Amino acid sequence: MKKYSIILVVLLTFYGSVCIAQTAIVEDFKPSTLNQPGQDYPQVNSQGYVRFRIAAPEAKSVVVSLGLGGAKGGTELSKAEDGFWKGTTAGAMDEGFHYYHVTVDGGVFNDPGALNFYGSTRWESGIEIPSHDQDFYALKEVPHGNVQQILFPSKSTNTSLRAYVYTPPSYFKDKSKSYPVLYLQHGWGEDETAWSNQGRVNLIMDNMIAEGKIKPFIIVMTYGMTNEIKYGGMASFKIDGFQTVLVDELIPYVDSNFRTIANQKNRAMAGLSMGGMETKTITLNKPEVFSHYALLSGGTYKAQDIKDKSKVKLIFLSCGSKERPDAIKSSVSELKAAGFNAVSYVSEGTGHEFQTWRRSFKELAPLLFKD
Amino acid sequence: MKKYSIILVVLLTFYGSVCIAQTAIVEDFKPSTLNQPGQDYPQVNSQGYVRFRIAAPEAKSVVVSLGLGGAKGGTELSKAEDGFWKGTTAGAMDEGFHYYHVTVDGGVFNDPGALNFYGSTRWESGIEIPSHDQDFYALKEVPHGNVQQILFPSKSTNTSLRAYVYTPPSYFKDKSKSYPVLYLQHGWGEDETAWSNQGRVNLIMDNMIAEGKIKPFIIVMTYGMTNEIKYGGMASFKIDGFQTVLVDELIPYVDSNFRTIANQKNRAMAGLSMGGMETKTITLNKPEVFSHYALLSGGTYKAQDIKDKSKVKLIFLSCGSKERPDAIKSSVSELKAAGFNAVSYVSEGTGHEFQTWRRSFKELAPLLFKD
Repeated sequence: MKKYSIILVVLLTFYGSVCIAQTAIVEDFKPSTLNQPGQDYPQVNSQGYVRFRIAAPEAKSVVVSLGLGGAKGGTELSKAEDGFWKGTTAGAMDEGFHYYHVTVDGGVFNDPGALNFYGSTRWESGIEIPSHDQDFYALKEVPHGNVQQILFPSKSTNTSLRAYVYTPPSYFKDKSKSYPVLYLQHGWGEDETAWSNQGRVNLIMDNMIAEGKIKPFIIVMTYGMTNEIKYGGMASFKIDGFQTVLVDELIPYVDSNFRTIANQKNRAMAGLSMGGMETKTITLNKPEVFSHYALLSGGTYKAQDIKDKSKVKLIFLSCGSKERPDAIKSSVSELKAAGFNAVSYVSEGTGHEFQTWRRSFKELAPLLFKD
Repeated sequence: MKKYSIILVVLLTFYGSVCIAQTAIVEDFKPSTLNQPGQDYPQVNSQGYVRFRIAAPEAKSVVVSLGLGGAKGGTELSKAEDGFWKGTTAGAMDEGFHYYHVTVDGGVFNDPGALNFYGSTRWESGIEIPSHDQDFYALKEVPHGNVQQILFPSKSTNTSLRAYVYTPPSYFKDKSKSYPVLYLQHGWGEDETAWSNQGRVNLIMDNMIAEGKIKPFIIVMTYGMTNEIKYGGMASFKIDGFQTVLVDELIPYVDSNFRTIANQKNRAMAGLSMGGMETKTITLNKPEVFSHYALLSGGTYKAQDIKDKSKVKLIFLSCGSKERPDAIKSSVSELKAAGFNAVSYVSEGTGHEFQTWRRSFKELAPLLFKD
């Protein structure tokens, strides 16, 4: 039986490869919606292929990190007669947002045509592959909330730190109303700009509020790599520095400067990837601060780690189908069996990328602050 | 006499060159304050020289647009044994903020070490040369106002447009107070991010408010190149599109969503460079909307062009000493003679760059909304 399985896998793999090779590329390429103003390249077609064009007339080699073509991965561009380096990804990219960069003669640069987004501890080029469900994060003719940059005093780091605060469209209209608050964290190498720039979380909120799908709440996003002095990876990561900034400095500032409902029941924490790890640790350390917990591609909870079940209103776990959905599902089953209000969500066809987290957020938002 | 003048100029020019060549470069280089997190280069020394280090091991040529060295201008880097391209500007740079980019084998890219700022219709690398008066735009331990991203409906462009709104620190504390509003425009090729990112106008405001030097006001910054469909330059520029967005769409939105004092007396317009040209045209077209006018390196007014003198509370004209200060000064003299409250300001030792405009803003702010 094992032998047949291997043959089947080989056949499927071969069939898959042939499929890609035989697919005709549809010549309906359009400039990416994340291009710099007036730039024609990079372009994306209706199948999700990406085509690049980069000027470097004297270069010997230009390779784009996006795509999986060639011996080295990525997309190797070829120099055309007009001096531009051109090339198309070998296959269709997953729907949604991707980071990428360009290696020119061994040096790593950004694509001059694309906008930049902070990830991998640097501003990288970004591209958007249209998705079948992109309507939920589109800019529409609906009332829009604001994204406010705040600078809050941080004694523990001896400076003012930056956070972004999403206030719903009603915030400035009905000045008597107060709101619950979600503290929402980015992943490793990203910063407080990620959830609105890459995640379009403000537009997702605006759209869901306009459709009456959620009760409005405030979202606060700040920098979560407080301890990463040298940006050297996760090995030496300790939660203390960030937990102090979040719980002892940012939350009191937000509660005294915005119309929040300043209690545990109306305060949630969520994070993606590393931000999920931070969410898990801080919610377990500080059960008196948060009542709703969400890990987006960011791990799982064990029921026995949670000291006081009565304090937890919701546990939400999600990931992309190309990650490890089984781990999410079995954790949620275990949490449910232990009596928690636990929900899992798997984003179909996506991996450890922002499309998973946009969709996860859309599933999470209606579950928050329900009573 | 003319002959002697020419000789004197030649001597001074020569002397100037020798000065630069003979100045020993002080080896106290430090990473630029505008580097990407964790990046050691570019660096700046106490004299204002900039040193670059860029990885591109297989490249044939790497030239930085900053500095005036070499036959082609800019700074030509040399490949060191470690594979990095290195070089130092031939002279000291002017104090303050500069845009730049890197040409690698004929292709234009950004320096991977530096943060990017939107100018020249693209996100460019930025560097900050410490200045003798940098304290006024430093991040300090004072109460900070917020910079809010708003998305306002624009029928004339059939979409939602973005603006940034600076609200002073007191805005969220004393909720009964209303504020005057300054509409503040960027220059050609820049956008609504320029005044806070490059100009640090929110920090200038925070600091001046903390020192009691100004009465708090709101600042609104939006995109002023509404008509520049193809980003093709100023030749075909018409004011109508932007004037409609500003006067008929943005101002009513701000007045209905923020606590403004919504009248002509408490509304100012200012702009730098192209934004000055827009300010001049719109204030002359719409004397019933604005009472305080400011052109920062953005031209001059003629007294006879202003129909109703009684509607104008202030005209402020400024530029850098390396621009055309005489034009500013003579225009202000003429305006004063005609009975206007006109003020000129010249930033010493700076040109058509943001240091001129930071300083101009600092001079302008205390003159606004005085009664």
